[in-house]
Amino acid sequence: MENSLYRGLFGDEEISTHLSAEAEIAAMIRVERALARAQASAGVIPKDMAQTIDQGLKHIEVAPVDLIAGTTQSGIPVPGLVAALRAALPPEAAHWVHWGATTQDIMDNGLVLRLALMLRSLESRLHKLTHQLADMADAHATLPMAGRTRSQIATPITYGLRVAQWMHPLLDLSDRIPAVKEGLKKVQCGGASGANSAIAPDGPAVMEALAKELGLAPSQPWHTNRVILADLSHWCATLTAALASMAGDITLMLRREIGELRLQGGGGSSTMPNKTNPVQAEVMMTLGRRVSGLTASANLAVQHTEERDGPAWMQEWLVLPQILIGTGAALNHAIDLIANISPDSNRMAANLALDGGAAQAETASFALAKHMPRAEAQALVKKAASAAREHERSLIDAVKDLAGDVDLELDMRKDAAIAGSAEIVAQLVDRARA
Amino acid sequence: MENSLYRGLFGDEEISTHLSAEAEIAAMIRVERALARAQASAGVIPKDMAQTIDQGLKHIEVAPVDLIAGTTQSGIPVPGLVAALRAALPPEAAHWVHWGATTQDIMDNGLVLRLALMLRSLESRLHKLTHQLADMADAHATLPMAGRTRSQIATPITYGLRVAQWMHPLLDLSDRIPAVKEGLKKVQCGGASGANSAIAPDGPAVMEALAKELGLAPSQPWHTNRVILADLSHWCATLTAALASMAGDITLMLRREIGELRLQGGGGSSTMPNKTNPVQAEVMMTLGRRVSGLTASANLAVQHTEERDGPAWMQEWLVLPQILIGTGAALNHAIDLIANISPDSNRMAANLALDGGAAQAETASFALAKHMPRAEAQALVKKAASAAREHERSLIDAVKDLAGDVDLELDMRKDAAIAGSAEIVAQLVDRARA
Amino acid sequence: MENSLYRGLFGDEEISTHLSAEAEIAAMIRVERALARAQASAGVIPKDMAQTIDQGLKHIEVAPVDLIAGTTQSGIPVPGLVAALRAALPPEAAHWVHWGATTQDIMDNGLVLRLALMLRSLESRLHKLTHQLADMADAHATLPMAGRTRSQIATPITYGLRVAQWMHPLLDLSDRIPAVKEGLKKVQCGGASGANSAIAPDGPAVMEALAKELGLAPSQPWHTNRVILADLSHWCATLTAALASMAGDITLMLRREIGELRLQGGGGSSTMPNKTNPVQAEVMMTLGRRVSGLTASANLAVQHTEERDGPAWMQEWLVLPQILIGTGAALNHAIDLIANISPDSNRMAANLALDGGAAQAETASFALAKHMPRAEAQALVKKAASAAREHERSLIDAVKDLAGDVDLELDMRKDAAIAGSAEIVAQLVDRARA
Amino acid sequence: MENSLYRGLFGDEEISTHLSAEAEIAAMIRVERALARAQASAGVIPKDMAQTIDQGLKHIEVAPVDLIAGTTQSGIPVPGLVAALRAALPPEAAHWVHWGATTQDIMDNGLVLRLALMLRSLESRLHKLTHQLADMADAHATLPMAGRTRSQIATPITYGLRVAQWMHPLLDLSDRIPAVKEGLKKVQCGGASGANSAIAPDGPAVMEALAKELGLAPSQPWHTNRVILADLSHWCATLTAALASMAGDITLMLRREIGELRLQGGGGSSTMPNKTNPVQAEVMMTLGRRVSGLTASANLAVQHTEERDGPAWMQEWLVLPQILIGTGAALNHAIDLIANISPDSNRMAANLALDGGAAQAETASFALAKHMPRAEAQALVKKAASAAREHERSLIDAVKDLAGDVDLELDMRKDAAIAGSAEIVAQLVDRARA
Repeated sequence: MENSLYRGLFGDEEISTHLSAEAEIAAMIRVERALARAQASAGVIPKDMAQTIDQGLKHIEVAPVDLIAGTTQSGIPVPGLVAALRAALPPEAAHWVHWGATTQDIMDNGLVLRLALMLRSLESRLHKLTHQLADMADAHATLPMAGRTRSQIATPITYGLRVAQWMHPLLDLSDRIPAVKEGLKKVQCGGASGANSAIAPDGPAVMEALAKELGLAPSQPWHTNRVILADLSHWCATLTAALASMAGDITLMLRREIGELRLQGGGGSSTMPNKTNPVQAEVMMTLGRRVSGLTASANLAVQHTEERDGPAWMQEWLVLPQILIGTGAALNHAIDLIANISPDSNRMAANLALDGGAAQAETASFALAKHMPRAEAQALVKKAASAAREHERSLIDAVKDLAGDVDLELDMRKDAAIAGSAEIVAQLVDRARA
Repeated sequence: MENSLYRGLFGDEEISTHLSAEAEIAAMIRVERALARAQASAGVIPKDMAQTIDQGLKHIEVAPVDLIAGTTQSGIPVPGLVAALRAALPPEAAHWVHWGATTQDIMDNGLVLRLALMLRSLESRLHKLTHQLADMADAHATLPMAGRTRSQIATPITYGLRVAQWMHPLLDLSDRIPAVKEGLKKVQCGGASGANSAIAPDGPAVMEALAKELGLAPSQPWHTNRVILADLSHWCATLTAALASMAGDITLMLRREIGELRLQGGGGSSTMPNKTNPVQAEVMMTLGRRVSGLTASANLAVQHTEERDGPAWMQEWLVLPQILIGTGAALNHAIDLIANISPDSNRMAANLALDGGAAQAETASFALAKHMPRAEAQALVKKAASAAREHERSLIDAVKDLAGDVDLELDMRKDAAIAGSAEIVAQLVDRARA
Repeated sequence: MENSLYRGLFGDEEISTHLSAEAEIAAMIRVERALARAQASAGVIPKDMAQTIDQGLKHIEVAPVDLIAGTTQSGIPVPGLVAALRAALPPEAAHWVHWGATTQDIMDNGLVLRLALMLRSLESRLHKLTHQLADMADAHATLPMAGRTRSQIATPITYGLRVAQWMHPLLDLSDRIPAVKEGLKKVQCGGASGANSAIAPDGPAVMEALAKELGLAPSQPWHTNRVILADLSHWCATLTAALASMAGDITLMLRREIGELRLQGGGGSSTMPNKTNPVQAEVMMTLGRRVSGLTASANLAVQHTEERDGPAWMQEWLVLPQILIGTGAALNHAIDLIANISPDSNRMAANLALDGGAAQAETASFALAKHMPRAEAQALVKKAASAAREHERSLIDAVKDLAGDVDLELDMRKDAAIAGSAEIVAQLVDRARA
Repeated sequence: MENSLYRGLFGDEEISTHLSAEAEIAAMIRVERALARAQASAGVIPKDMAQTIDQGLKHIEVAPVDLIAGTTQSGIPVPGLVAALRAALPPEAAHWVHWGATTQDIMDNGLVLRLALMLRSLESRLHKLTHQLADMADAHATLPMAGRTRSQIATPITYGLRVAQWMHPLLDLSDRIPAVKEGLKKVQCGGASGANSAIAPDGPAVMEALAKELGLAPSQPWHTNRVILADLSHWCATLTAALASMAGDITLMLRREIGELRLQGGGGSSTMPNKTNPVQAEVMMTLGRRVSGLTASANLAVQHTEERDGPAWMQEWLVLPQILIGTGAALNHAIDLIANISPDSNRMAANLALDGGAAQAETASFALAKHMPRAEAQALVKKAASAAREHERSLIDAVKDLAGDVDLELDMRKDAAIAGSAEIVAQLVDRARA
């Protein structure tokens, strides 16, 4: 955000710290130092020079402001950074800094190092949120409420089931973290055009050594192969979408006319004393749609040409940070929001009882269908439902009147339906706690 | 950008200033003062109280940092701002601040006031760029080069025609500015739910007076009708796309293998002394794709529900500034870039002469078709073209050999083709200078 | 849709007809005939040959199936089409068909001719819908209901105001039709690389004559300047977004818990006899989001390179038809949907009365503020509101109790608020009927 | 495509067959039959009735045209389909068809069954393409060409390396197939609101049995958890992006001015006999951008509310087929295109020799840096490069002149650089063949 006012809504301080100029510079210096050590161990540069570089750059600080002009000129921060690093070293060591490397090697390794930290942070928040939801689902596994399909009251479910279904995609996304993480652990070491021509034939040795120094896995140069970053964007986008779904439900449930949730906190109005706006849920919905829009750009950013594609790469610089921050902010709001909502079982019961308990129409029709052809059963229930609505009486009573002395065991079936929800809740909660 | 390093590439200082928290607060204060004056003139609040508000808030400064917590809590900055304004006034005047208004009235009026300034700035840059291009097209109206269609050399055009075609969409977009500007001059005055209920029956009078005070046009409340902002986003996106097209062409022409343009300046490499990267053209391409992606979100932001839609409105806060800054940055780069390129007529001639001047195949086939059936003419030219390619001789000579003693007047036709380009250039340049 | 099952949901038969292969071929033949006439009148081809072409192609039918292989091979249908047309003519006339033209001339002119028809159809539907809404807004201008902001009950408005606000963006979009239409009336006549080189120096004369023959305006070649198509896409996208907003509101109002609208028709469930799904409103929401996503691609399609850009142009072929069909389908559903909904004034009143009529809190606080400082008034109303909620009594009564013997004229103010809504309704309805 | 002309460009007959109404209906019937068998085995419906259903529906054909009206009315095809199935059975068996199931159970299971087939087809094409590329990379592992970074000639690589890098993301995407496939093998069995209320307490047993019948894995209902479909869309989008990258490179290399590839086939022009357009490569670029745009919509389609979200679900119906067809078409074109291109080693050598072999500037500066400080070496090379450019002589000679009698071993280093490329090629080819 250009505008600081909205940072508390759309920002994420922790993620932003990793994405700051300062953190980027620090990570790139770390990479230059590791490169010197790696090249020394592969016999490409003198060992003592590598040591001088490694030690000499250990505590150096390069201010972003000093690199802006150079970045604007070159389109990349590395030439300016390397000049600054060289200036801080004795000339004979300066000579060996950034030996045979290309800007992208430095930036991409710096990026994946920082992404690992960001992903760890997102993972830990997701873990926390999942446990909040598991506890909530568990606690209300049998609290009846009306399920809604296509915006209409459908059949009874439980509040626990709804919460467990908010959690369901989050469990799937948790399962995908190891693969995303593993993917991002790829060393970048290709030199100018990705063939390590300046250090040939030592390219493979340097690459292996650099991977080891940085705690990454060996890899062919991936200058133009951005699949691992696309995977990360996709994971973030799907997560943010899942949080937006949850937020959409919560916003509906917080509406006064539905009233099935209560919210602690919430935003006030500048003119209406009666209102509490579900600000965090709204922000989550905003971010869900926002990050969806960014996925199109993230996918374009995968489309590189030749050995390095300026526009595609720069697209990545613009989009990836916003996806990460949007995801982080949405997770933070979700954790807060879930901590602040609680179900209103009276309102849930009242909505379930609307139109004489029309939500039980399906149950009634299946109970009846044990005693008559199904088409007939459905017709009878439809008739009963309109009688119940008109005369403000119970659907079940209306059905019983029309059905005669059939033993419908409706109450038993109703409990069974609750048990059906609870069974699915239990499975999902178990998965969350595994 | 979270990351300051890249501000010179993707940022726009002037536009960002108008989008800053400081500018937003100042604009909102201006609106609150105008509201007080308007309500006084409509007899809704006491005249002396309005004067106290107007004068008392004239020099007040509210720091963004003091509004962040409130904005995070409420989802909107106005409750906190109004509290700060009231605190700065005598209680009897504080009472009348923000009388019957809603947050959106204050924010939207503040927004359109700032958008007018931003649009003026973008317009003046576009004007400048258009004139640069008109001069360049004019100067090179008859400089021959190879036209390319679907990435292949096609028929001769002139460099002036290519430049004029870069300018063509910019002329169309200039023509659309008055409508976009006029659209954005809409006062927002609706109160809580857009019915001005708190100041009924004085709503219309206050709205008219407020429009006058702010130099805007009267309007029904447009809280949920964001067509004018969609129009602005669309104008920006199309402009940025047109600049990206120009940048794409320039990048191709700056390739060493094509070499039809020369660039002053350009970015260096961290490892290759031979390279000059077309950084500004690349950034323009980046921004073209980037802003395209944002249009999808901008269009979602138009989809409001009920009397105020939090998620849709907040979507607008996130997307509109990025569209404006991206457009502004692209324009700035374009102005610089156009000032720094110059055609290489030798390379243009050399490319036109490739394969014996194959670009003249169409001309030759039409000249021949005056003397033989067209299918025959095309077949003859195809044969000549492959002879020319194989034996590295001129296509025209090869055609003449095969065609016998037909007077093809090919040179005359060639000049006519140049004149054809020049004619279109003249029309577009005239339009630009009108 | 590949899948015919869903054509009634997402398709638009009329628009699709104009976008069919048959219609495209017919339009291109019309252009080839007009081109012959235009070239004859400019003295470029013999008059009798033009007549033979014009008459000879008048009743020709070329089957799409015969052009598919050629289109797949060339990436464009025109070479195959021209071959088919030539085969149907005497050789001496065949010679002059498509003289000096390029594929894009034929396709683009054919496109704008068909777009004019489609736009006329969309316009007439929009006109019809606007009038339906104007009548509905007018009829219910004073029917009170609760306004909702940020999903919460806010202050009273009228149903007429809500309907009028659905109409508000549609009025703005109607106002933009003439400019879009006018823009699309641009003749395309540039030849191979947009310089009319094959017919030089007669390019301008042919272009003028062709414009006249086709009822279009003269224009410089716009092969790579797609602003007019971007404008059309934008208009469609904003319109579809406005319809989605309306559909979103209607879906909410049709929820059983809110119940402020009743729907005739609506979709059934395969298993629940109690349900009526608001299918058409859902489809409109689907299309609103869908077309939003397509705008990003439409904007990318504006980014051409050089004299003809295959990928960008083909992007347009994919996206523009889907935008047009989506818009048309959404309009059709909207017309049906509006004809089938009616307000439930009892439910509106009941929701307005929730929590003792909390929607009147703003009104009450402004009424009180005439007698005490505003902060005090707001505090008193907040206290009254919570008393009303707890003891299930009227907010106004609770306010009166707390406020003592102040004459609040609350009822009068309430009527004034209704009048405030009605006033805005009247303005918008007048605009619709102008 | 509405327009049949373009099916050969953007369509995919095989994928479209799986997405046709006929295939959807057949799959849904298969699911209804499996459901009957599963419910019988779980004791929910009578075994003989299940057998009657299973056999009775084995050869039934329901024509799409008969379901369109019902689908338009209900928004879903299942009520109409179930009615048709019941009509084909004896009443006592008809009674038990679709017992306790919801539309989404039938449609989603039908979908994943068909997706498995489509994914198998895409996988086999990807496998074929990967092997083509591996062979090509292998064959040309040491063929020198100029690497280009940011559109400028950079340092030497080999054609094999470029091809291997086209293949690199495809290898990553092949690695991801098992996870995507496994994810999609999830049975859908939830009933009306996802709690299997109509068949409680037999929900879990029926779900397990149905999974077994359909060859799917057991799962909690995923009515609103669309992560597995988002994963599929993401995989497709990244794949299509990778193909677009390859196509972009090929288009550049096929430009006459670069000329490093030759193309068999290619499209002709309606007016220029000299041209061969790289149609298939263009289509691949079109589809790359196209599918990128669709990912935004696919991510929105993940955002469901409550127990079933009409608009989100329908968004999926619109977007997922287009993503699959676009991916399939891009793969088909890629296989053809790769079969039809061959490198032109002369042009590669010529481009490498431009400006006296400026591409070797990096190599020269690193060779020199063994004998003098690096800054000095870079300066010397820069000077030599401009001398070489001006006097049209070899950069290496110019360097040698300026450097004096230093033994630069430049040729040896050049071979080493080729070997560096070949080493990476070998690694990637091995991965492809593993």
